[in-house]
Amino acid sequence: MNGFNDEIRLFIRVLEFMGTFAGAISGVRLSSAKRFDWFGASVVGLITAVGGGTLRDTLIDAPVFWMEDPFYIITSLLAVVAVAVFGRRFISGQVTWFVFDTVSISLFMVIGLQKSLFYGQSWWCAIILGVITAVAGGILRDVCINEVPLIFRKELYALACAAGGFLYFALPFVGLENLYARNVLSVLVIFVIRALAIKYHLGVPVLDGRGAPFRHRR
Amino acid sequence: MNGFNDEIRLFIRVLEFMGTFAGAISGVRLSSAKRFDWFGASVVGLITAVGGGTLRDTLIDAPVFWMEDPFYIITSLLAVVAVAVFGRRFISGQVTWFVFDTVSISLFMVIGLQKSLFYGQSWWCAIILGVITAVAGGILRDVCINEVPLIFRKELYALACAAGGFLYFALPFVGLENLYARNVLSVLVIFVIRALAIKYHLGVPVLDGRGAPFRHRR
Amino acid sequence: MNGFNDEIRLFIRVLEFMGTFAGAISGVRLSSAKRFDWFGASVVGLITAVGGGTLRDTLIDAPVFWMEDPFYIITSLLAVVAVAVFGRRFISGQVTWFVFDTVSISLFMVIGLQKSLFYGQSWWCAIILGVITAVAGGILRDVCINEVPLIFRKELYALACAAGGFLYFALPFVGLENLYARNVLSVLVIFVIRALAIKYHLGVPVLDGRGAPFRHRR
Repeated sequence: MNGFNDEIRLFIRVLEFMGTFAGAISGVRLSSAKRFDWFGASVVGLITAVGGGTLRDTLIDAPVFWMEDPFYIITSLLAVVAVAVFGRRFISGQVTWFVFDTVSISLFMVIGLQKSLFYGQSWWCAIILGVITAVAGGILRDVCINEVPLIFRKELYALACAAGGFLYFALPFVGLENLYARNVLSVLVIFVIRALAIKYHLGVPVLDGRGAPFRHRR
Repeated sequence: MNGFNDEIRLFIRVLEFMGTFAGAISGVRLSSAKRFDWFGASVVGLITAVGGGTLRDTLIDAPVFWMEDPFYIITSLLAVVAVAVFGRRFISGQVTWFVFDTVSISLFMVIGLQKSLFYGQSWWCAIILGVITAVAGGILRDVCINEVPLIFRKELYALACAAGGFLYFALPFVGLENLYARNVLSVLVIFVIRALAIKYHLGVPVLDGRGAPFRHRR
Repeated sequence: MNGFNDEIRLFIRVLEFMGTFAGAISGVRLSSAKRFDWFGASVVGLITAVGGGTLRDTLIDAPVFWMEDPFYIITSLLAVVAVAVFGRRFISGQVTWFVFDTVSISLFMVIGLQKSLFYGQSWWCAIILGVITAVAGGILRDVCINEVPLIFRKELYALACAAGGFLYFALPFVGLENLYARNVLSVLVIFVIRALAIKYHLGVPVLDGRGAPFRHRR
């Protein structure tokens, strides 16, 4: 990521650490429900934290981010330690859980979008790669614990990320060019959409077994 | 894919669009059986449609095909729209289903084989990469819906693809050099083998629990 | 892998063939429990055998090892033939199974570590990539047969590999520089740890459902 403006690099780094920590927590939390051992849970935490970004870097043929810098691995392991030490405080409570979960995906969305743009991807690829960065880790996590990935069934996960991505590219058309503002607004929008979706149980219409017309999730 | 003869490029593109559309339909259809929401079903459709080719491009270190050209994504989304609008007509009926399913894998086989050859792969790698292009999307689809991948248990999927691949390389030895004819014949052979396998319930012998000698599927 | 010393290359090749054979056996054995057909079992055997190395090569952006040399595929198919012919002798018996399984992961660990170093990875990346080489094939195998990956729950799999990796880098500090000795000792340590873990049912403490403090696996 040589072409990077140092300020932006630092900005992205901070986001990445926060998202990595949150992602690892979610991985450890869900593995614990399957009575994985601590090592297995750590691996799933790691996969959840860096899985999306690893897939993104493979697709854009960038060097894999966590291999260039030990801090991602260290951050993930810190999350495992945090769960081991503050177990209940860290992962019980729907609110805490929602915050970690949503902070993680909204940050990863913006990070993935930014990095893809820096690697010369088109705006629509950047959005898709952002969504991949945000949700692929969670999909890999759910595959590892042998569950149907939550994001295919739960409230507006990936769709919220996509909305944040579109906003990022829409803002300049309404005169807002500032990179920081656009990133922050995207994160906020994703966070708000997720919060509303959970508060009001909003969801995407469900496909019934016959793949027939719309019917709402019971 | 610069070294490409334009005619061949166009030929491959047409095959890719047809295969992508068929693949997305199959992904949406199977997700619907799991009551995924429309967004989840679209993602699974997308994964089914482009998953195999994405894995192939990663393995041969080619730029990922769907990132170079929005039409693959658009085609997949068109398939989702088609299912939403013509639901029953599109995806009910064993015959329709078989046709889409088999058109998809036979086209992907030939596409994957062609592209691998253009990227300098050996004939045996091209066959393997063709099979990967053909079936990996379906494997990823089945992993996403948390089922044992069909192709490991159903009638002669991958084996039919491999047979088509071998035919492609065998034809010149019997004097048939024409690229179009070889591609078309491979597709036809895969289609016919699949059709016979389903009509006469042909399958590969099953391994029993002890991994002991052959026994036929009950 | 141009920079390679020929002796080391040969050494690595021999290890790779042994590990590939063992990996394929384990894939076929577990698929057989799911009554996969022979082709499906062969594919799963292949995935188990080359999956970890393929992921490693993708991550370090090396050409995928099995595409450069048909012997890996041939070795995997030989393993399938071996299971078909000597079924019981090959895969029944806990000891035989343990030996194949553990030989496979310990060899893959060292191979992955070596290759990562040759590709200029740092020591900690080399250990992680070694563990990935060792266990990712098994994870992919378990995902294909729709089971929770064993290594997240079974005795000290990946942890034993990591220990072998750390030993590899620790030995020079106690004056042992010889590359062969370090490789052999790493393999032995992994093998011994696995053996002790199974004999004395050692495991990593389990996370209970609340992600609360340590409790030992029942």
